[in-house]
Amino acid sequence: MVFAETADYGLLSPAWAGTRAAALTSDQALLQAMLDVELEWLRVLASAGLIKEGVPDAVAPACQASRYDIADLAARAQGGGNPVIPLLADLRAIVREEAPDAAGPIHRAATSQDILDSALMLMASRALETILADAYRAQAALAGLAREHADTLSVARTLTQHSLPSTFGLKAAQWLHGIGQATAALEAAAAALPLQWGGASGTMAALTTAAEGSTSTPLELSADLASRLGLADPVAPWQTNRLPVTALGGALADLLAAAGKVSNDVLLLSRPEIGEVSEPREAGRGGSSAMPQKQNPVLSVLIRSAALAAPGYTAMLQAAAGAADDERPGGSWHVEWQALRQLLRLAGGAAVKLAELSAGLQVHTGAVARNLTAAGPLVVSEKVMARVAPLLDDGTPGQGKKLVQELVARSLAGEDFPALLRDAVPAQALSDADIADLLNPANYIGQSSALIERIISAYPGRKNA
Amino acid sequence: MVFAETADYGLLSPAWAGTRAAALTSDQALLQAMLDVELEWLRVLASAGLIKEGVPDAVAPACQASRYDIADLAARAQGGGNPVIPLLADLRAIVREEAPDAAGPIHRAATSQDILDSALMLMASRALETILADAYRAQAALAGLAREHADTLSVARTLTQHSLPSTFGLKAAQWLHGIGQATAALEAAAAALPLQWGGASGTMAALTTAAEGSTSTPLELSADLASRLGLADPVAPWQTNRLPVTALGGALADLLAAAGKVSNDVLLLSRPEIGEVSEPREAGRGGSSAMPQKQNPVLSVLIRSAALAAPGYTAMLQAAAGAADDERPGGSWHVEWQALRQLLRLAGGAAVKLAELSAGLQVHTGAVARNLTAAGPLVVSEKVMARVAPLLDDGTPGQGKKLVQELVARSLAGEDFPALLRDAVPAQALSDADIADLLNPANYIGQSSALIERIISAYPGRKNA
Amino acid sequence: MVFAETADYGLLSPAWAGTRAAALTSDQALLQAMLDVELEWLRVLASAGLIKEGVPDAVAPACQASRYDIADLAARAQGGGNPVIPLLADLRAIVREEAPDAAGPIHRAATSQDILDSALMLMASRALETILADAYRAQAALAGLAREHADTLSVARTLTQHSLPSTFGLKAAQWLHGIGQATAALEAAAAALPLQWGGASGTMAALTTAAEGSTSTPLELSADLASRLGLADPVAPWQTNRLPVTALGGALADLLAAAGKVSNDVLLLSRPEIGEVSEPREAGRGGSSAMPQKQNPVLSVLIRSAALAAPGYTAMLQAAAGAADDERPGGSWHVEWQALRQLLRLAGGAAVKLAELSAGLQVHTGAVARNLTAAGPLVVSEKVMARVAPLLDDGTPGQGKKLVQELVARSLAGEDFPALLRDAVPAQALSDADIADLLNPANYIGQSSALIERIISAYPGRKNA
Amino acid sequence: MVFAETADYGLLSPAWAGTRAAALTSDQALLQAMLDVELEWLRVLASAGLIKEGVPDAVAPACQASRYDIADLAARAQGGGNPVIPLLADLRAIVREEAPDAAGPIHRAATSQDILDSALMLMASRALETILADAYRAQAALAGLAREHADTLSVARTLTQHSLPSTFGLKAAQWLHGIGQATAALEAAAAALPLQWGGASGTMAALTTAAEGSTSTPLELSADLASRLGLADPVAPWQTNRLPVTALGGALADLLAAAGKVSNDVLLLSRPEIGEVSEPREAGRGGSSAMPQKQNPVLSVLIRSAALAAPGYTAMLQAAAGAADDERPGGSWHVEWQALRQLLRLAGGAAVKLAELSAGLQVHTGAVARNLTAAGPLVVSEKVMARVAPLLDDGTPGQGKKLVQELVARSLAGEDFPALLRDAVPAQALSDADIADLLNPANYIGQSSALIERIISAYPGRKNA
Repeated sequence: MVFAETADYGLLSPAWAGTRAAALTSDQALLQAMLDVELEWLRVLASAGLIKEGVPDAVAPACQASRYDIADLAARAQGGGNPVIPLLADLRAIVREEAPDAAGPIHRAATSQDILDSALMLMASRALETILADAYRAQAALAGLAREHADTLSVARTLTQHSLPSTFGLKAAQWLHGIGQATAALEAAAAALPLQWGGASGTMAALTTAAEGSTSTPLELSADLASRLGLADPVAPWQTNRLPVTALGGALADLLAAAGKVSNDVLLLSRPEIGEVSEPREAGRGGSSAMPQKQNPVLSVLIRSAALAAPGYTAMLQAAAGAADDERPGGSWHVEWQALRQLLRLAGGAAVKLAELSAGLQVHTGAVARNLTAAGPLVVSEKVMARVAPLLDDGTPGQGKKLVQELVARSLAGEDFPALLRDAVPAQALSDADIADLLNPANYIGQSSALIERIISAYPGRKNA
Repeated sequence: MVFAETADYGLLSPAWAGTRAAALTSDQALLQAMLDVELEWLRVLASAGLIKEGVPDAVAPACQASRYDIADLAARAQGGGNPVIPLLADLRAIVREEAPDAAGPIHRAATSQDILDSALMLMASRALETILADAYRAQAALAGLAREHADTLSVARTLTQHSLPSTFGLKAAQWLHGIGQATAALEAAAAALPLQWGGASGTMAALTTAAEGSTSTPLELSADLASRLGLADPVAPWQTNRLPVTALGGALADLLAAAGKVSNDVLLLSRPEIGEVSEPREAGRGGSSAMPQKQNPVLSVLIRSAALAAPGYTAMLQAAAGAADDERPGGSWHVEWQALRQLLRLAGGAAVKLAELSAGLQVHTGAVARNLTAAGPLVVSEKVMARVAPLLDDGTPGQGKKLVQELVARSLAGEDFPALLRDAVPAQALSDADIADLLNPANYIGQSSALIERIISAYPGRKNA
Repeated sequence: MVFAETADYGLLSPAWAGTRAAALTSDQALLQAMLDVELEWLRVLASAGLIKEGVPDAVAPACQASRYDIADLAARAQGGGNPVIPLLADLRAIVREEAPDAAGPIHRAATSQDILDSALMLMASRALETILADAYRAQAALAGLAREHADTLSVARTLTQHSLPSTFGLKAAQWLHGIGQATAALEAAAAALPLQWGGASGTMAALTTAAEGSTSTPLELSADLASRLGLADPVAPWQTNRLPVTALGGALADLLAAAGKVSNDVLLLSRPEIGEVSEPREAGRGGSSAMPQKQNPVLSVLIRSAALAAPGYTAMLQAAAGAADDERPGGSWHVEWQALRQLLRLAGGAAVKLAELSAGLQVHTGAVARNLTAAGPLVVSEKVMARVAPLLDDGTPGQGKKLVQELVARSLAGEDFPALLRDAVPAQALSDADIADLLNPANYIGQSSALIERIISAYPGRKNA
Repeated sequence: MVFAETADYGLLSPAWAGTRAAALTSDQALLQAMLDVELEWLRVLASAGLIKEGVPDAVAPACQASRYDIADLAARAQGGGNPVIPLLADLRAIVREEAPDAAGPIHRAATSQDILDSALMLMASRALETILADAYRAQAALAGLAREHADTLSVARTLTQHSLPSTFGLKAAQWLHGIGQATAALEAAAAALPLQWGGASGTMAALTTAAEGSTSTPLELSADLASRLGLADPVAPWQTNRLPVTALGGALADLLAAAGKVSNDVLLLSRPEIGEVSEPREAGRGGSSAMPQKQNPVLSVLIRSAALAAPGYTAMLQAAAGAADDERPGGSWHVEWQALRQLLRLAGGAAVKLAELSAGLQVHTGAVARNLTAAGPLVVSEKVMARVAPLLDDGTPGQGKKLVQELVARSLAGEDFPALLRDAVPAQALSDADIADLLNPANYIGQSSALIERIISAYPGRKNA
């Protein structure tokens, strides 16, 4: 554990430490991605007959991240401002030792930024597989919750106060709505992650030189590399046009925001006074270092912390994109790397926690019903206004509304609302049964069922999963 | 000018003050959009036979923003936390006066958030027309610049230093690359701006009540409203799923970032020591309050200032989306409004300035050539390394590269690079003419022409413009 | 109301529209501050005998903001990138008309940035008077709440769950703790707001020329101006060192964060299921456009929205400071202006609302007690662990703790905790009365009283208020 | 190197990887700080006679960070949402093994947040020592540069264009101005870093129980702990009042902004076309992976990248502070940790690079002079306006200014400015020698010397260094 003294294992990042996304975005994973790009590029060159056929296989054994001293590479990266330069020195040294003839073509016609940008996209695409898988697991669980509780009457809340009757199923469906939109956009972003390949100044000049005499054009060679790496082939090098980075960052941030919404609701609804949900229990989770009785909703706490961090990272990415200049930006390029990786980690941590939370969420239907009951008959006062005001109109404009508003005020002051209604409206206009129907919250949930189905249909989950 | 004492006319916002986008996003424009939503909703209801046919026309005269005291509305908006509540009071008061029978149906089954969210989308869609028009104007001008200067040899710069030969046309094409990507994404975002219509808690309960007896379902009624307003019909109300807002904000920020890149380059290239470009001159622009000789690149300064502001606003929108809770968020909803509007204004200001800048940019080809010449023959040292190192290899791995690196170092120290090359390489391996060809920067611009054409083809400009 | 079409009256900013801070930071207020700086500078010059004695008084009538067409100035500010240039043109035009001999010395030896930076500081110092006054009003009210409820037993909550007994007074004292710290820092920032006065490039060159023959040095003249404007005299011009701006921005953001904490708590505690507090009622506040029964905690909603906006603005100010270059930054200077003003407005809006909220907050002691009771005896399980575990130790390390943890688990599963305790511990070790004492939450509020007094003593309120 | 697969060694963070500040803020350093807090607390308890005298020494061997598996702790931190809970389990397990009697008192009366907040402050205070030392080294070097070049005439630049004569010394002094202000504020922040110690809910309840029978009050005990850790003793626990965190974050961000300004200038001035400065050369620094001739200003590139990241992190800290609720915030507390640490790392990396940059900056006085000469005589046109316009006035207001402006315009169009002046002004009003004096830039540098000395006096460097 020689590096332990300077490394970061995620001790301050419980939102994502220990997750699969964390492993897929570690320094080792990034290093592997850089080596993969260098190696695949050799395969492109060999395949085009531009270098000897055996070179890639000769170099391959050196392209294993575990052979490198990452902390040392990191420290030496200060020299050139990026990790590719020291990595190349070490890679070449190994190959010179093990397969001397194969060392020459390494990194041919490439530049640091080609390798690093493409490796970041490659690392992102690998991490996105697990992030998306977890997001789809969460979607499926939320769709299940929505259907299961399509008829669980609940009280809606706006600006913190009880507003109207609703259903717990619609709440879950709206969680799905956010997660589904974000996941779809993230999947599209994952499919669009482009190779970055332009050479030292974005002109492909070295590549043009290298490809002389080949039957492949430089743009065909870079397209081949994109294909081998599973990346999209861009219109042109984007070494100074950083929208692929902001697009990915934005999609990750949106997933975090949608997950944040769910966590905020779970945190609220699991407060003891509200008690409508509990997080899934698991041994070793939710405890306190001081209070033996505590059961903290720690999945939601950590999801929320991830969502709170995201805006700062998106601001970094946007600032970097807008600060670019020349044919390679000095400083703004460098700030993107860690910001983008942190967004991947946070999204990965949030997605796996959300999947677990959604799948195991306990809904306490008794408490849901109790809170609706506690809201009282005024929870349908909007409907009363719509139905009863016209019955009380005497020709003065607004008279009916004013009278209903007075009934509401008296009820807020303590009087019984059904009785007030009964007194105010003649029985021939509104029978006792009509009043009971009117005040029954089950009769005032609008399009809850239709909306649940629309949302589930719109986000049906992963096609092949 | 009774309101002047508390208003903001853009005195601190020269990046967008006085532009068409500013007028389309003013308080008056927003107020008009809110009134338009209220009025179109009456038309939907009338068209469905749910209210009297004549109501919309009777209410229409009251739906002119100029009839309202905006500062008073703004101050009263504190009461309910949003401007819809006082607006409704004033609207109803006017209609009660002018067409008493028409007052009742106003705002039927709607809630404040329906009106405000939809009005913001409507305002955005109106502002985006002019923003996109300017962005397309900029694209066309940049494509022109790219083609005009496809053969204007220039020096590329990475991390501030001269790197390789390139062309001014490729620089302009890369500006187009960024602007084109951002504009395409923004156009897609403009087409997806959704109506928000869910009633007091997102259940469409009041609307369900109101639509009883109609042949139209509530979801059909809201789809009709979306269509009339030119907005998209969403899967479901999104009163707590704010991704439509972050998506629009992200697209605007991307346009600002792409414009920021252009402005950074123009600011650099118009420095007197570099002198490759000048902003278009116009009377009254670029002057100083103190120095009579100053000609400041003020278009770029203001575009850059807009780009620098954008990350903060996107952070607000992301933070708001992630902080949402319940069926209407308390506080986080409220923070979106101004942030979104400012992004529209900044993008609008940047787009119109960029269009003017791109159309009138003066390229000083003499200075472009001079700077390339000043870069000297080492500007092609990458190519020399590729071509000459193999000629100097003696079997020791890396020997050729090492020798070329030594020649480069001696040249950096003052010796003549062509002469050094001549000395180092036998004439039979490299003739004098070969050396001249090798060092000619015109022979080392790679895929400049192909990339320019790829970029122009990818971003051909507005279809019907 | 000729400007209405392009102006912003705060319609989307209920957090601050209509407040005194809004009026003190309007475009008109800024314009007045710019005119005040120009005029006071003439007084400095006249006082030093550098211009004719009568000039300031002759120019004074033109230095009234109400005489200017602000929208026109704002639109023309695009030309030079700041509002000073068009303002000077209009100011000189008026003076040439009204007092021709006095026009010459206007703006002598100054530059746009001197005027605008100093005017922003002046505007800030004026706005801070009212912001600080409101913050101190809030402090006084919070201190009152803290003392009044020093003995109101309540349940503390950590990570949303009931944790330990506490007092409502300590909660209010902690609100005061945050507001007090932030206010003290803001008051220090207000006292340190510096004049910015360096001439066209920060060398005071024009001023040195202008002051030739005077007995005052340029630095004495600028110190005199600072004194007349009530600003601090800086070490040197800070046209490119923007820490005075970030310092002020940071202090405003801290006040907003502290206010945000209070608003979050009030929003939570005023949820119907918790019900521990209500916002002060006022006619016309808290209503809904749809639901007649709603009483929304709108003061807190708006304070929270202000706090949510602040991080984005501080990010802009920090980004601007870090992007500065040369002797006047192109673009980054420009982005500060609006960001700083918005922070002043948000802090002003939040402060006045917080003062009202704190002074009128209704604490429902019944609900406070009920929630503590509902937390049950496990709310003191930490104390039970400390006291009872040693009694149960049998020599095996950790045995006592383990047994208590088991009792807690059984109680969480439904058993009666006092009875479990009684069974587990011999009466001679813990009498019935001891158990009752142990489980009495009033006996486990620690240093609540001492902390309340420490906090109140540390933040005693405004000295002369 | 068992942890390598998931760790972050700074491979994407060349701005700070490998620095001393990085080592002082690593996971291991944080872990050590947490163990130090736990151990010192035992010393406090022992010293107060509340636990056995020998306990601290018995526990001490277990309080070495190198004994713990950090990656495992990080992964287990998900369970309780913070790393203290698994750490305590491991610490107790070790002590139970090695000194069974000493295990009981560990963590007595403390809570996770006490440990983590205080450990973060302790880690910060340790890192700040090296950050401040580097900042003071930079100050000393900048003061040296300022004095050395007090008479090196240069051209100032505003909005990218040549403005007035100045001196390179004043530029360096202004760098010192920013760094000095920021360092002074950071030193004050370092001295104010407070202990956080309030127990499970900020009431000090467990501590009150634990201290029963002691002669020390709980507040005295916590003050003793603060003193032992070298931290400030706060007014009260600040578990929900996060201004100590935002204050530290703000001070770090300000240092980064000030360093960013320096780096922006060095990047500009080291462009080949300007050529006024070069970064200090060092073997292995500034190279390119593709272009053998490149010498990149990599210190400045990395400082600039650090400055670009800072606003995002300050936004996170402000957002966290404003999102706090209850007696321990769920989520917002958690987001602070990494953001604060990253700011420490970035500031540490920037400070050490700035110290090296400042100490070794090469100023090319020939290029400085050349650029001033290239600016031509119009660089003093402000002075010409002040001096010559009055000589040309004919009684028409503004006539003299207008005529000078015309001369400037003709000179911009190519005519010789001295000759134009000579023609325009009679020799008796302005002799040839007067014109030469007037146009000599050395006569128009204003208060350059005085300002340099004021700045150096204001920031004299570290007292004991």
